[in-house]
Amino acid sequence: MLRDCTPDFLDTLAARLPAGTLDAAAPRHLEEPRGRVHGRPGPVARPRSTAEVATILAACHAAGVGVVPWGGGTGLVGGQVTDAGPLPLILSLERMAAVRALHPGENVLVIEAGATLAAAHAAAEDAGRLFPLSLASEGTATVGGNLATNAGGVNVLRYGNARALCLGVEAVLADGTVVGDLRRLRKDNTGYDIRDLLIGAEGTLGVITAAALTLVPRPAETGTAVLVVESPAAALELLGIAQARSTGMVSAFELISGVSFDFMAETMPGVRPPLPGRPDWAVLIELGLPPGFDAQAMLGAIFEAGAGAGLVSDGVIAGSEAQRAAFWAFREHIPEANRAIGAVSSHDVSLPLSRIADFIGRAGAALAAAGDFRINCFGHLGDGNLHFNAFPAKGRGKAEYEGQRRAVMDLVHDIVHEMEGSFSAEHGIGRLKVTDLARYGDPGRLAAMRAVKAALDPKGILNPGAVLG
Amino acid sequence: MLRDCTPDFLDTLAARLPAGTLDAAAPRHLEEPRGRVHGRPGPVARPRSTAEVATILAACHAAGVGVVPWGGGTGLVGGQVTDAGPLPLILSLERMAAVRALHPGENVLVIEAGATLAAAHAAAEDAGRLFPLSLASEGTATVGGNLATNAGGVNVLRYGNARALCLGVEAVLADGTVVGDLRRLRKDNTGYDIRDLLIGAEGTLGVITAAALTLVPRPAETGTAVLVVESPAAALELLGIAQARSTGMVSAFELISGVSFDFMAETMPGVRPPLPGRPDWAVLIELGLPPGFDAQAMLGAIFEAGAGAGLVSDGVIAGSEAQRAAFWAFREHIPEANRAIGAVSSHDVSLPLSRIADFIGRAGAALAAAGDFRINCFGHLGDGNLHFNAFPAKGRGKAEYEGQRRAVMDLVHDIVHEMEGSFSAEHGIGRLKVTDLARYGDPGRLAAMRAVKAALDPKGILNPGAVLG
Repeated sequence: MLRDCTPDFLDTLAARLPAGTLDAAAPRHLEEPRGRVHGRPGPVARPRSTAEVATILAACHAAGVGVVPWGGGTGLVGGQVTDAGPLPLILSLERMAAVRALHPGENVLVIEAGATLAAAHAAAEDAGRLFPLSLASEGTATVGGNLATNAGGVNVLRYGNARALCLGVEAVLADGTVVGDLRRLRKDNTGYDIRDLLIGAEGTLGVITAAALTLVPRPAETGTAVLVVESPAAALELLGIAQARSTGMVSAFELISGVSFDFMAETMPGVRPPLPGRPDWAVLIELGLPPGFDAQAMLGAIFEAGAGAGLVSDGVIAGSEAQRAAFWAFREHIPEANRAIGAVSSHDVSLPLSRIADFIGRAGAALAAAGDFRINCFGHLGDGNLHFNAFPAKGRGKAEYEGQRRAVMDLVHDIVHEMEGSFSAEHGIGRLKVTDLARYGDPGRLAAMRAVKAALDPKGILNPGAVLG
Repeated sequence: MLRDCTPDFLDTLAARLPAGTLDAAAPRHLEEPRGRVHGRPGPVARPRSTAEVATILAACHAAGVGVVPWGGGTGLVGGQVTDAGPLPLILSLERMAAVRALHPGENVLVIEAGATLAAAHAAAEDAGRLFPLSLASEGTATVGGNLATNAGGVNVLRYGNARALCLGVEAVLADGTVVGDLRRLRKDNTGYDIRDLLIGAEGTLGVITAAALTLVPRPAETGTAVLVVESPAAALELLGIAQARSTGMVSAFELISGVSFDFMAETMPGVRPPLPGRPDWAVLIELGLPPGFDAQAMLGAIFEAGAGAGLVSDGVIAGSEAQRAAFWAFREHIPEANRAIGAVSSHDVSLPLSRIADFIGRAGAALAAAGDFRINCFGHLGDGNLHFNAFPAKGRGKAEYEGQRRAVMDLVHDIVHEMEGSFSAEHGIGRLKVTDLARYGDPGRLAAMRAVKAALDPKGILNPGAVLG
């Protein structure tokens, strides 16, 4: 059983740490973007080194005090804040944000976990490279949080998620043991994959303190277009054409629904839509090419081939960097428009690629039968990952649907599960999806997860209540 | 403590299984290619279903009988056979070799673990796709063994190793629990990465029974060349040029040393070398391109650019499929030539890419100082993975070097370790590298590995003596 992080415990801990390491949590440490979980005022530790992280965890382990690791606070499933159980110590790595090493010849960046994703981008750019993980919250989200949640974003299609971009980690286990696995090797078969076990574990198995990240060459030529497609199925066919014609150089392929256009017009009329009218479905496609290729010409050819195959009816290719930025601004403001409308229930789901179009039809019909909803379905189509979110009908408010959230979520997730999909494609489990994991998770896999958790964190001090509950 | 797999135990187990599941092990179950570990005659179980695997493991777990999982028997570190401890039950999945499902539209193949890699290739080809894992032993090695050892091979540079090509697994844990994680999703953040924990664990944490594998489009145009390079450093620079000019379409980039040419001429004069003379260093480069690209022209441009930069002095581009096959035959016979010469010690190492050239110089000088050796250094340069093998001087035999193996290995591995490399890039730990893991492994990571092993296999029945010893 855990116990409260008491003033007495903090006094003992403070004696082992440099002055100023412990403090009262700031408001940012107690919030999460969806406002569903509210942390209680309490202490935060802000260590400056891996050794200090080890000191803190060893002490919490010995005393049975819970620790909630905090990155940038942008997670969408409440993994970073708790309102239940004994009062924990919040552990923020915000003071551990150094670039430890940059190896441009190897395409590797070694950086501390508290660095923001934007800082990792900047370090890569200084070396003429790209760190391709790309999310709207990059200015706040941290490398450690990105790894702990195996973050996705818009470039997974080409470069993979956070897991695929990490060669090695340094981490501290629950009892203060430091795992030094900060390797920068492309191949290394020397025992169990502890790195990948820590990645995506949401701080419940250990705290990642630094990582060796994979960089890639910066595309010399970038081309971006928004194309109107007949349907999600047509969009997927178009992606196949685009991949073949560009030798797999499609960096992003984002589905945008007509409802996204509606919501943007309703809540943010100042953000200009990429094309006139209100298409039922559109895709934002981006190519990133090496020197000597003509991205605009390639997009033109993809457009024509798509039109010839009856998949594409209209479209616009960005003719300038400003236009490209405007396309992306439209896409990246969709979540903000969603928040302004106010979702009844949001779903971050993935499906086997061949079942996506069916899923959109089935889940849409089921929601229509269940009530009067608007559905905004958008996202990372090429990865099979949709944000399939249910909103109040036009003119009605979220409050009128209070009490329906869980039923709507179960309805959608049940269909996802039956169609062999995932109820959390990129956001993780946190605290908001613990019941979903228990409901849909394979029992054998859950048993293995529980055994691993008990082995690496026998007192359950790390992020109590998250993932396995 | 484990106990022998006795006739009494086998009788009890046989009663729960279809007739013919248990048998006496065949010679193939008791051998490994390097002949360093010899299994004792004993029983083998050859189940036909995952449920039967679960029955076998549950019984062995209850009785404390060790189980040695056996795939195709091609592993190079003795992971598949034991000569120590109580007599184990060998568990071969050779009867579980079915293609469970093929999803061409998703580029996914679901196949049982006992299928050979060649069978996976054939299934992919039937669907017009490619399963890109490629090893010389593909006709014998199995999908399960490839995953258990996280196999590498010649296409890792472009497509990744076995881990990167697996979306989901079905597996049985030590106590008979079935983990049903046979997903075919590109994104799924629902808890700990049990899949990657089982991959590369060499059968010590669970037995993989089936896998969902990633397929890729078959390249429409393939081009292959052997180029003479000035040095390993020049080869790496050439790779950079080739990747930029081909938009990353380099499928293979294999370093071949002059000693490889010597050994081939000495032991297999019938296998024709790709070019006349005896270069100090050469690379075999292969491009795989979508329709509409000219692979030979692209190789020609890479050749010229390399020559212009002073990296390449000679070369030949395959003009026919027969010539291409001949280039590959030369490359793939090198291990056979090595066996014919007889290595004093073989090393499957990886280095950070920027340190490879230094490593070859340093390790070569250290071996020259230590004795009279010939070094055959070849392999997957683009991945930072070298097979750096020490052989007797010309005219001398392996027997004269008896007793020096461990010292030579330590000398090489010490340098690898000091240069932040790995002493096992793609072969794994098995039984032959257990002492190396204990010597070079990070203590914190080893502690985590031991905790996970104890949690998932508390009685230590799975592949006893492998990996952690």
